[in-house]
Amino acid sequence: MKIEAIAPSPFAQINTPAAVIDVTQMAANIDRMQARMNALGVRFRPHVKTSKCVDVVRLQTRAGASGITVSTLKEAEQFFAAGIVDILYAVGIAPHKLAQAAALIAAGCRLRILVDNLAAAQAVAAYANTHDIAFDVLIEIDTDGHRSGVKPEAPELIDIARALTADSRVTLAGVMTHAGASYALHDAVALQQFAEQERALCVRAATRLREAGFACLDVSVGSTPTALSAQTLDGVTEVRAGVYVFFDLVMANVGVCSLGDIAMSVLTTVIGHQREKGWVIVDAGWMAMSRDRGTQMQQLDYGYGQVCDAAGQPIAGCLMASANQEHGIVEWRDANAAQSVEARFPVGMQLRILPNHACATAAQFPAYEALGGDGIVTTWPRFYGW
Amino acid sequence: MKIEAIAPSPFAQINTPAAVIDVTQMAANIDRMQARMNALGVRFRPHVKTSKCVDVVRLQTRAGASGITVSTLKEAEQFFAAGIVDILYAVGIAPHKLAQAAALIAAGCRLRILVDNLAAAQAVAAYANTHDIAFDVLIEIDTDGHRSGVKPEAPELIDIARALTADSRVTLAGVMTHAGASYALHDAVALQQFAEQERALCVRAATRLREAGFACLDVSVGSTPTALSAQTLDGVTEVRAGVYVFFDLVMANVGVCSLGDIAMSVLTTVIGHQREKGWVIVDAGWMAMSRDRGTQMQQLDYGYGQVCDAAGQPIAGCLMASANQEHGIVEWRDANAAQSVEARFPVGMQLRILPNHACATAAQFPAYEALGGDGIVTTWPRFYGW
Repeated sequence: MKIEAIAPSPFAQINTPAAVIDVTQMAANIDRMQARMNALGVRFRPHVKTSKCVDVVRLQTRAGASGITVSTLKEAEQFFAAGIVDILYAVGIAPHKLAQAAALIAAGCRLRILVDNLAAAQAVAAYANTHDIAFDVLIEIDTDGHRSGVKPEAPELIDIARALTADSRVTLAGVMTHAGASYALHDAVALQQFAEQERALCVRAATRLREAGFACLDVSVGSTPTALSAQTLDGVTEVRAGVYVFFDLVMANVGVCSLGDIAMSVLTTVIGHQREKGWVIVDAGWMAMSRDRGTQMQQLDYGYGQVCDAAGQPIAGCLMASANQEHGIVEWRDANAAQSVEARFPVGMQLRILPNHACATAAQFPAYEALGGDGIVTTWPRFYGW
Repeated sequence: MKIEAIAPSPFAQINTPAAVIDVTQMAANIDRMQARMNALGVRFRPHVKTSKCVDVVRLQTRAGASGITVSTLKEAEQFFAAGIVDILYAVGIAPHKLAQAAALIAAGCRLRILVDNLAAAQAVAAYANTHDIAFDVLIEIDTDGHRSGVKPEAPELIDIARALTADSRVTLAGVMTHAGASYALHDAVALQQFAEQERALCVRAATRLREAGFACLDVSVGSTPTALSAQTLDGVTEVRAGVYVFFDLVMANVGVCSLGDIAMSVLTTVIGHQREKGWVIVDAGWMAMSRDRGTQMQQLDYGYGQVCDAAGQPIAGCLMASANQEHGIVEWRDANAAQSVEARFPVGMQLRILPNHACATAAQFPAYEALGGDGIVTTWPRFYGW
């Protein structure tokens, strides 16, 4: 009889809680999205708000990404310092942030900014005039009613373009939309239709601007669900998506990934039990998982996360059902399975928890523990704040 | 007619989003709790997981606090480095963290650790023996069934004490409980009864241990709601509470503070509108507020927060109703009030948002902007991670 040696866990020396990246799986997610964008004939501009990590973003640009999308000017500053020049700041700019944006542009960053209203457009043109600085600006289009943006048919769209270009230093570079309401869907046909709505309405806004005499070269659309569902992208020049790099339980419920595709998880250690309730207490609470309960209203509610063994294999029916700041309560969906949690999950055992929302969970950690295909774990710093 | 000069906002130069502390109000919160503990005749050990900020904690210790409570060993390390020696790590210790705890103790920190099960107790005794290091240990008692801890009447309680003291380097320093289920209450009488339950059951556990021959000097109880509701604390030696330092909307719903007592808020800037929906879009989303929706199940749901003007005065009926990563959607509870949001909240206007849960919101920020009674704003760093 041959006895197989049990490989020691690559995480045995890692303090918990920790945010673990399976780099092999993440690379597969990156390749899947980039190949799709290449096949659809559009540039791909990943949204780096998910990882806020130079090591992750370098893998995205090496795979073929054309520039990046950021959600804060701090991200722009950090990634520009790391050598990435082509950056879209995809949140409508507050007038007081124009000086910070201008400093990046003056330093050589090809930063594009966003507006969706007349007051902001006027502020951009006035700042360009007063400070003699050139801005490339996109107008945000509302294609699904979920947040900000101007409607494609709104008369105001043309007014905003005129207000922006009132100063010749401002270039209307294009239009941009994010169909974030796609997160609420979970049907492949509905997702395809939603991606087509996002595309068609954003292209329509660009057409109106062109008919009014504006160049409006770029048409930028995207969200992870629509990017993975679009059948054609006629008239679109670039697509953005963020969470696909890690995926998460919300995306699994939407139907654009499987649990096995989720590349980021929280490593935790069992610290106790409540035997009669079938509870396992772990040292990752909501401070580690975040308070995101994105699966709460979806078809399958995962509580604060799906429990996996230390190797990353999901343990069917085992969830982090609730959480305090530094305590997670792990239990079975089926209370009948509750017996003998102490034997099954002894104190000191490591587990991994798949998160509801990777962007929110990752943000709780100063660094990732990146597990390479060679079994070696490397610490990758990430940043936060504004 | 006399024209009053409008004072410029102290936050005019602060980038948004920012976590603002009203230091005058915070000092009042600190004094209120410390005076109560003095009157009840117990030591007070504030839980610093709320602020993770040396500047805040120095005000708590100057007001009379006896040591601190921490939720992570990183907090212990950071506050020990800042000169605070008496520290209780109030999460059941994972065996792999004993080396980190031992290093603090060897450096002179009077660190106390916590266990609630036999396996952890055995690990502590074994580590003390192997590494010739002395540990002061408390046993966690479950007085409300909400999380971890051993029941006061459980036979295991005595077994844990025996296992701990199997090595003479380990001192059973006392018992500790946290009646976190108090957060679900909102009635003064029920809170008083709950505080009494917390006290009585924790004292009962200490009595059992003493009857079994263990010294068990300390009886440590607390949560913000019970600390502010207890009528007597006979047999208790110290009380712990954390969120009282800032307070928040959850605590206002519990009934232990008013909106005016809330000393921490998120400063944000209006970046746009959806006129026909009555939405105001601001540059604080869930990344700033956290995903905590603690008021969702309470009597008054504040969405992601109560909107105030830049001076901190609540605007009645105005909430952050929903949030994306870097966008907040502010609207009125009463949709009829929705008209003219652009005039009422113009682009560039600063607002302040009171948070659901101060511990969660504060954790999203690398620093606080602390507004002193002199109107001067000082940046106070805070830390995160493990």
